[in-house]
Amino acid sequence: MATREGPVEADAMRRAIALAARALGSTSPNPVVGCVVLDAAGRTAGEGRHRRAGGPHAEIDALRAAADAGHDVRGGTAVVTLEPCNHTGRTGPCAQALIDAGIARVVYAVADPNPTATGGAATLAAAGVDVEGGLLAAEAAAGNAAWLTSVLRRRPFVLWKYAATLDGRSAAADGTSRWISSAESRADVHRLRAEADAVVVGSGTLRSDDPHLAVRGPVLQRGDVTQPLRVVVDTHATVTPGARVLDAAAPTLIVVGEDADTRHLPGADIARLPADKPGGGNGGKALLAELHGRGVRSVLLEGGAALAGSFVAAGAVDRVVAYLAPALLGAGPSALGDSGIGTIARALRLDVTDVARLGPDLRITATPLASASTAPEEN
Amino acid sequence: MATREGPVEADAMRRAIALAARALGSTSPNPVVGCVVLDAAGRTAGEGRHRRAGGPHAEIDALRAAADAGHDVRGGTAVVTLEPCNHTGRTGPCAQALIDAGIARVVYAVADPNPTATGGAATLAAAGVDVEGGLLAAEAAAGNAAWLTSVLRRRPFVLWKYAATLDGRSAAADGTSRWISSAESRADVHRLRAEADAVVVGSGTLRSDDPHLAVRGPVLQRGDVTQPLRVVVDTHATVTPGARVLDAAAPTLIVVGEDADTRHLPGADIARLPADKPGGGNGGKALLAELHGRGVRSVLLEGGAALAGSFVAAGAVDRVVAYLAPALLGAGPSALGDSGIGTIARALRLDVTDVARLGPDLRITATPLASASTAPEEN
Repeated sequence: MATREGPVEADAMRRAIALAARALGSTSPNPVVGCVVLDAAGRTAGEGRHRRAGGPHAEIDALRAAADAGHDVRGGTAVVTLEPCNHTGRTGPCAQALIDAGIARVVYAVADPNPTATGGAATLAAAGVDVEGGLLAAEAAAGNAAWLTSVLRRRPFVLWKYAATLDGRSAAADGTSRWISSAESRADVHRLRAEADAVVVGSGTLRSDDPHLAVRGPVLQRGDVTQPLRVVVDTHATVTPGARVLDAAAPTLIVVGEDADTRHLPGADIARLPADKPGGGNGGKALLAELHGRGVRSVLLEGGAALAGSFVAAGAVDRVVAYLAPALLGAGPSALGDSGIGTIARALRLDVTDVARLGPDLRITATPLASASTAPEEN
Repeated sequence: MATREGPVEADAMRRAIALAARALGSTSPNPVVGCVVLDAAGRTAGEGRHRRAGGPHAEIDALRAAADAGHDVRGGTAVVTLEPCNHTGRTGPCAQALIDAGIARVVYAVADPNPTATGGAATLAAAGVDVEGGLLAAEAAAGNAAWLTSVLRRRPFVLWKYAATLDGRSAAADGTSRWISSAESRADVHRLRAEADAVVVGSGTLRSDDPHLAVRGPVLQRGDVTQPLRVVVDTHATVTPGARVLDAAAPTLIVVGEDADTRHLPGADIARLPADKPGGGNGGKALLAELHGRGVRSVLLEGGAALAGSFVAAGAVDRVVAYLAPALLGAGPSALGDSGIGTIARALRLDVTDVARLGPDLRITATPLASASTAPEEN
């Protein structure tokens, strides 16, 4: 007999969600997925996760782990964060693999919203497998927010992060900004980079900060960190070959205007977009479409104020992470530039989902209200 | 036998600190003080607090409560948040009253830093009373921060409060600001007003908001709320007789420049200060001196950005309370104006002492680093 939904399956789902989270930033264009296979007695037989596109899906990874350990999973339960797929992509369909392995019950959290992948639950049920969806769905969806958003909106998920003083300044009047935020906050930014597929900055930030944008520091000890694509929105191709962002630490895409002269950048990966506004006009939509076409499912927008303003204006910010340093300046550039909002009734209202202390700083995480970014559509 | 310091006395001190806090905003120019008198067996015999200037001190209040209840306090212990006074002001010296009542032991938290009041501990000891200072001194000092600051700095304690969006805007580009902050935050501001001796705004805020500045709402149900002095910094005497701040709900002081024409304000309470800068120049120091002379020991600075900037520049902000609304504007006036800080190394660094959620908003309380505002000098 398969186990019934209960503490064992809920515990297994929490473990599966944690397994999935370890692969954030490495699986695009695929979601992060974790799976725990229980044997017929409800004992953990194998754990797995999807590690990278082209690699085995979480269910296959977990079944293999169970087989390698010599555990019998016939009559057992697969607990998985996302509805098992039904299509044959680079790996075979997971639904069939679970059936072939003799799994009697499948418990999943979130239904697959991808039209080319749905149907796994129906296939399993038709084969006589007991299928149940929705266990810890909110938690699992939150862990897959970037991918779910990208599927539903057909563009990458955008997390805008900024560092500012308590009075909203991203630098002092003379342009100095090192260090507004604490070492702890700066280390946390590297975690965000590691979890993103791409890190985006504008040319103003490029010129003023010469940023590196690759993942550095302790987060690399996690082992399986994938460096993000570094994206420079540089309409007039002002970046010089010696810029730090062009080193070999991670791939880099230079987004320029249609008629920019890029002869000083031989061999660089260059995308040409309409040049009327930052990010190719339409508040970065052209940029996001370009990135989506390259398999990017999550973007960390790091600066500057003008580029962030155009994203806010276009409704293309899905999450905000503010590192607020407990300091006052009273002058200097603001963290967010013109967003086309002229009156208080049109302010972009957010819901604060987390507040944390990072050294002396506060990290505030918030999501635009009326955003469906973490709410998958029902099938 | 008197009780020894231990859980009973610590509990009594916590109670005394809570009693003191209930009088915040009502005792100036005196401190808030709470007292619990224990009988010789360590049982609570009477509780008291200093309610208002001219009224009995906390020790007298507690001794009277014990007598009213028929409790014998001879051989007992007085637990009090501030060293008992030794001087004869409008009420007699508390040290002598405690001796006369037969109190055998006095435990106080904070030594009295006021040169005209110290010596109570020595007087008690000379009379054979067992005296001990320092119990829960930090907690008691925090509860008396405004008064201690005013004694040490010879000016009122200044709490600057502001409401802003997450990106630091106090209003939208068109000047609209109702309501940036939540109803919960606005109610909390009335608590701050009730705890302050004076509420200060500049003429810009006066013109744009026509603020009322009196305490309204649920906090009034506390019963013993004293309305603050409403102070309008209005160099050119632009306030009109119909302004809400001039109604009868609370007293109002209009601070104008030396040569301002105030003939349209007959009967108004007017102070004249040098007119070169907001607050009478020197970053509000002339204003603070004027208020200190009027018995004001704590000021709630409510706006606007220019006035706050001049106070920050002068080092005359002792605490910051920021109501941050989870919203983005990308344009509009900043909460803090020019503070004379031009480079990041000179930013006014703060220590965040509290973060609270008020409805959707965050309330962040912070204290300037290197401020001695809550640290009483040792005698």
